[in-house]
Amino acid sequence: MGMAIITLLTDYGTVDSYVGEMKGVLLSLAPGATLVDLTHDIAPGDLAAAAYVVGRAWHRFPAGTVHLAVVDPGVGTQRAALAFSTRGHFFVGPDNGLWSAVMHGAPVQAVTLAPAPQASPTFHGRDIFAPAAARLAQGEPLASLGAAYTSIPRRVSGALPHHEGKVVVGEVIYVDRYGNLVTNLTTAVVPPYAVLEAESLVIGPLRSTFGDVPTGALLAYVGSGGQVEIAVRDGSAARRLGLGVGGRVRARLG
Amino acid sequence: MGMAIITLLTDYGTVDSYVGEMKGVLLSLAPGATLVDLTHDIAPGDLAAAAYVVGRAWHRFPAGTVHLAVVDPGVGTQRAALAFSTRGHFFVGPDNGLWSAVMHGAPVQAVTLAPAPQASPTFHGRDIFAPAAARLAQGEPLASLGAAYTSIPRRVSGALPHHEGKVVVGEVIYVDRYGNLVTNLTTAVVPPYAVLEAESLVIGPLRSTFGDVPTGALLAYVGSGGQVEIAVRDGSAARRLGLGVGGRVRARLG
Amino acid sequence: MGMAIITLLTDYGTVDSYVGEMKGVLLSLAPGATLVDLTHDIAPGDLAAAAYVVGRAWHRFPAGTVHLAVVDPGVGTQRAALAFSTRGHFFVGPDNGLWSAVMHGAPVQAVTLAPAPQASPTFHGRDIFAPAAARLAQGEPLASLGAAYTSIPRRVSGALPHHEGKVVVGEVIYVDRYGNLVTNLTTAVVPPYAVLEAESLVIGPLRSTFGDVPTGALLAYVGSGGQVEIAVRDGSAARRLGLGVGGRVRARLG
Repeated sequence: MGMAIITLLTDYGTVDSYVGEMKGVLLSLAPGATLVDLTHDIAPGDLAAAAYVVGRAWHRFPAGTVHLAVVDPGVGTQRAALAFSTRGHFFVGPDNGLWSAVMHGAPVQAVTLAPAPQASPTFHGRDIFAPAAARLAQGEPLASLGAAYTSIPRRVSGALPHHEGKVVVGEVIYVDRYGNLVTNLTTAVVPPYAVLEAESLVIGPLRSTFGDVPTGALLAYVGSGGQVEIAVRDGSAARRLGLGVGGRVRARLG
Repeated sequence: MGMAIITLLTDYGTVDSYVGEMKGVLLSLAPGATLVDLTHDIAPGDLAAAAYVVGRAWHRFPAGTVHLAVVDPGVGTQRAALAFSTRGHFFVGPDNGLWSAVMHGAPVQAVTLAPAPQASPTFHGRDIFAPAAARLAQGEPLASLGAAYTSIPRRVSGALPHHEGKVVVGEVIYVDRYGNLVTNLTTAVVPPYAVLEAESLVIGPLRSTFGDVPTGALLAYVGSGGQVEIAVRDGSAARRLGLGVGGRVRARLG
Repeated sequence: MGMAIITLLTDYGTVDSYVGEMKGVLLSLAPGATLVDLTHDIAPGDLAAAAYVVGRAWHRFPAGTVHLAVVDPGVGTQRAALAFSTRGHFFVGPDNGLWSAVMHGAPVQAVTLAPAPQASPTFHGRDIFAPAAARLAQGEPLASLGAAYTSIPRRVSGALPHHEGKVVVGEVIYVDRYGNLVTNLTTAVVPPYAVLEAESLVIGPLRSTFGDVPTGALLAYVGSGGQVEIAVRDGSAARRLGLGVGGRVRARLG
């Protein structure tokens, strides 16, 4: 076995000591592990964004990677602390919806991490989740970390597209740094002849890439995560359209 | 000996080339070292924040770790350039108060780094401190890096709590990304029956964790760094109270 | 051969999944590689800033390092995808001016990366550039990555200093996080007796470092990248002077 990889995703930001403290714990318990930051800039408590980001990134890493994600507004409440494996990867973090995009379509083996009496009641990332991730990175079996978890994991409520006559109605689920609007529409429900609309504005048919429209023009295309996205070439669709998460996007079929 | 760990803390930000240039020097002189960013987002020249962050994070790493911290508003003045060891860890950076939370309670062995004639007069992080950190990471003895440092290291002025009758008066020493207010009060001076106040507002007794109060409520608790903190569950105490570093926090004892 | 180093520079920011997805690809194809972030906070599409940062940082790393830089406003247009080597380092990214500060003064061997049919048309960083960087990090020869590139690489238009009588006229090419103004003037054209001016304000002669002037004063000096810079000691010259990229800086020779 080569060196273990541990990815980290939190809403801790990059200003305070919190990420550094977690990494100190990880490298103390799993010497030589490769630590990779997915992001620490999730808006505080934004579980939907965290679920989207971890759901896009985890499967790009090699099998055996441990994904440690802590966006945990419920720290100090009764939410469960989880470690689980699916599709050959390991995951550690709270059961609060964060894993909505990971836990589906394949068997999941999950355990609850026991409360650690000496853990800070407000920093489980450092005192409960990081030690569990380090143990998995060291090759300890998942089952040794806690009792089997038999509850149904929580999910963030993600609206599904629906049909209104000859229109498929979806919505924006994520806005990236460029102002590109990622929707919950995919080519499974949007045929090539559909015409996309954002709120009441006609965007046009699905394009292949930015170069298909002039600079400054709006376009719809299938983004690198597989969803339909709305963008402005060399600009921000979020600013142009005044749209954010929850904004309506329609695919008109005829 | 395994691979050396070097942590980095600066106020260089993450936009410019400065951190990358330092890392290039580190990996050139200490091939295979594991580099860990504590933070590069200390506000320019904010020595008190830097001292707080490095003071919380360093001891989470394994013994032998080299901690390189450069917040150096005095670069190009007469402040000394230091390398020192204490409690089995190594530290490299300017003597300007940055090490206030590290250098106490245990013996310290310190040397001054000699000026390097070819060093940029404005970038000692790259040209003086990083090479010293790399040499320590490579196992060179501390004493080989410079002459013994016999001056008394500088300290950032940290107000200590004091008593006013039956009230312990402390202050906010750090505000984190969530708007939690970290104070200089600890359970050494705040007994369990004390009632906390921030400016003229009563917060209540020390709680264990966020779940002990309703969403949106203020609470006081012992934070993950050991100090009393004031927070708003799922909110920002800094915004709610309009308080920052230096704001008054009181523990009323009767 | 030791472990390969891959540096990363993008304008992807640190909030979204994009950097994490790239790193997953890199570590899948080049297990054990050391990944070093130069920055991901280049302003979207700011090729001049990207060229400046990569041009300062790359040569601080050991020979054999692979530098992966993706600021790619033209993704999905006809710009070429490049891998090249010069001075013993490897470089991967689009041919759009990004490499202006790297590709000069030494022979360059370059190839074009073939389009990958399964690549996302909007995320070549993940699907074309990262796989190429990983292959170089694994020791594959450059020539195996694509056909020789014989076009003249694009350059960002960088104004050169010119003389107006006894005045050398330069301009600001970069502003760093401290508000220091980096110019295109060097000691090759600015003699020690010159007097520097920013717009119509006299700054004075070249100083050695910040300590040469009082706190709050303006100074000119040769910065750590070799260019003349204008700064305010413990302050921001950009704010003080209201100057940014393109602002005029003069060296009066008599």
